[in-house]
Amino acid sequence: MQLPEQMRPENICLSDDRKKVIIIDQASLPNRVEYLTLDQPEECYRAIQTLQVRGAPAIGIFAAFAMFVIAQQWEELPLEEFLEKYRKTSEYLNTARPTAVNLSWAIRRLQRIVDENAEKPVKDVIHLIGKEADRIQQEDVEMCFQIASHGLSLLKEGDGILTHCNAGPLATSCYGTALGPMLLGKEQGMQFKVFADETRPLLQGARLTTYELQKAGIDVTLICDNMASVVMKNGWVDKVFVGCDRIAANGDFANKIGTSGVAILANYYHIPVYTLGPSSTIDLNTPTGADIPIELRDPDEIRTMWYQKPMAPKGVPCYNPSFDVTDHSLLAGIVTEKGIVYPPFEENLKRLFQK
Amino acid sequence: MQLPEQMRPENICLSDDRKKVIIIDQASLPNRVEYLTLDQPEECYRAIQTLQVRGAPAIGIFAAFAMFVIAQQWEELPLEEFLEKYRKTSEYLNTARPTAVNLSWAIRRLQRIVDENAEKPVKDVIHLIGKEADRIQQEDVEMCFQIASHGLSLLKEGDGILTHCNAGPLATSCYGTALGPMLLGKEQGMQFKVFADETRPLLQGARLTTYELQKAGIDVTLICDNMASVVMKNGWVDKVFVGCDRIAANGDFANKIGTSGVAILANYYHIPVYTLGPSSTIDLNTPTGADIPIELRDPDEIRTMWYQKPMAPKGVPCYNPSFDVTDHSLLAGIVTEKGIVYPPFEENLKRLFQK
Repeated sequence: MQLPEQMRPENICLSDDRKKVIIIDQASLPNRVEYLTLDQPEECYRAIQTLQVRGAPAIGIFAAFAMFVIAQQWEELPLEEFLEKYRKTSEYLNTARPTAVNLSWAIRRLQRIVDENAEKPVKDVIHLIGKEADRIQQEDVEMCFQIASHGLSLLKEGDGILTHCNAGPLATSCYGTALGPMLLGKEQGMQFKVFADETRPLLQGARLTTYELQKAGIDVTLICDNMASVVMKNGWVDKVFVGCDRIAANGDFANKIGTSGVAILANYYHIPVYTLGPSSTIDLNTPTGADIPIELRDPDEIRTMWYQKPMAPKGVPCYNPSFDVTDHSLLAGIVTEKGIVYPPFEENLKRLFQK
Repeated sequence: MQLPEQMRPENICLSDDRKKVIIIDQASLPNRVEYLTLDQPEECYRAIQTLQVRGAPAIGIFAAFAMFVIAQQWEELPLEEFLEKYRKTSEYLNTARPTAVNLSWAIRRLQRIVDENAEKPVKDVIHLIGKEADRIQQEDVEMCFQIASHGLSLLKEGDGILTHCNAGPLATSCYGTALGPMLLGKEQGMQFKVFADETRPLLQGARLTTYELQKAGIDVTLICDNMASVVMKNGWVDKVFVGCDRIAANGDFANKIGTSGVAILANYYHIPVYTLGPSSTIDLNTPTGADIPIELRDPDEIRTMWYQKPMAPKGVPCYNPSFDVTDHSLLAGIVTEKGIVYPPFEENLKRLFQK
């Protein structure tokens, strides 16, 4: 498929000698555009855990490149030792964040390549790991473009769109998922009015979504999460587009904390809610949203992070889940690279994989 | 009425010589407990506008004390000049914030005293202003106690309560409004589990509500605004208690931005929502919520305030309403010092004032 020129991923790539993985440091945006060059397991783990790289598909791509880069350092090891180290490091990286399915999906995919070629010379195995990692990213680029195209079919000129967290190019590659239709539509000359929830506590909406949309010349207005209700009540929102970290077999989906609230509000105001993501996000082995593990994060992300001074009394207990699950009954459709899935989701999600 | 010892208001009082008004600086909490001593119109205006004093009833009490303190400086003026200056300064102070009805209510109440005694010597008029200001505060103390008592009748041992923004002692006097039932219940040996929304962008929940509840020994957990949905879904919330800045004749009410969202979520999860406030907050001259003016505040409260570095791209547009209106259909009851008002609100609110 011929992809537009600008669709070269900039958020994650390999160095020219393919020995390091380079990422844009999402934790430093929008104040500084900084790139990190990584090749150590611990720093790759930390990059995922501290959200220097974030967004479900991006984590998958990054983990694949990271494992390739790390594996190259063991080229001289005997095969058995190589395989053992590779497996252990994969498992270690896989524990950096629990909710998004893409991390373990990418790691399993590479492991399969390793297992299938476990009697070849180490050098060849490493080469195949690199090829598979490249393929994961290239597939993501193509998937994002397809998702953007399908999503765009839901929009019309002048639409108001509310989005939560960041599911743009930074979270994936190129167009992103939830932001893809707006970016693609903009390229085709369409105008939208986007409302970006700031998305506490990590402020991905304020820091990343506004940055990406502004860069693309799209009309974006930043709001606090608690303003979504009044923006909808004002009649400014025609559709809600959000990403997803895992979609269960019944259509329940995990996404950034606050998504379920946005979906309930949108339903109250009769605004359709769509989640957009690659089909790798759909996990038919997870029957319902109740089966998705939800990551609990450090209370200081709420009490002190980003601030000049603590904004809550020292030691006050916090509950800080990183994700929540939106019930499928609140969802108008799931936009994937294979097309848009409508209710009944249980039936239609299964069918998606039978095509 | 015999009030408990601890019900001496600490957030707003007069200096011993009654020439200055002293407030706790709510903008510095919870990091520093600082008191401000004020006697100039501009600094009083600024104290309201910058939320050094905040909470609808507290603003009313403060404005009354401020006008008394300022008026004393004009004791030597000829009567006509005094009356003119008094009226103009009242009007000026009244424009500091538009949404809460208590500010203009307190100012009008003092103006009536001035008008009714406009032929007396200036010294006597000033004395009467001081007496009326004292009365406004004393009434508020008693009202808060009554609201707390009525509100407590809705709670049972072990209840989970979610609250938004701050409607505690700092926002009023003594018990506060929405927090009153928990504080009073705690004194009587009851245990509750309170969830406090941090309440972006000014973080009154994180900074003030947790501070007040923790000080009182009440079990409080801080959450981001976008976590209310999942806390409710987890079954941890039995009631939502919030304050109010203005209640329209049909029961629609303005409160801190995000309240309408909380109310919609609570209704989705079948959790009753109560607003608690003095009857001075009920404005029968405002037919519906659509008639309540909503204050729009500086975008930098979202983009840069409190932070070490800007958390959004420079100049990105923001929409920053300070309040929203919750539809009366989402409300289980209105708790006032005169009792609890249940639907139909239009009829029953009118009846409240006929008692």
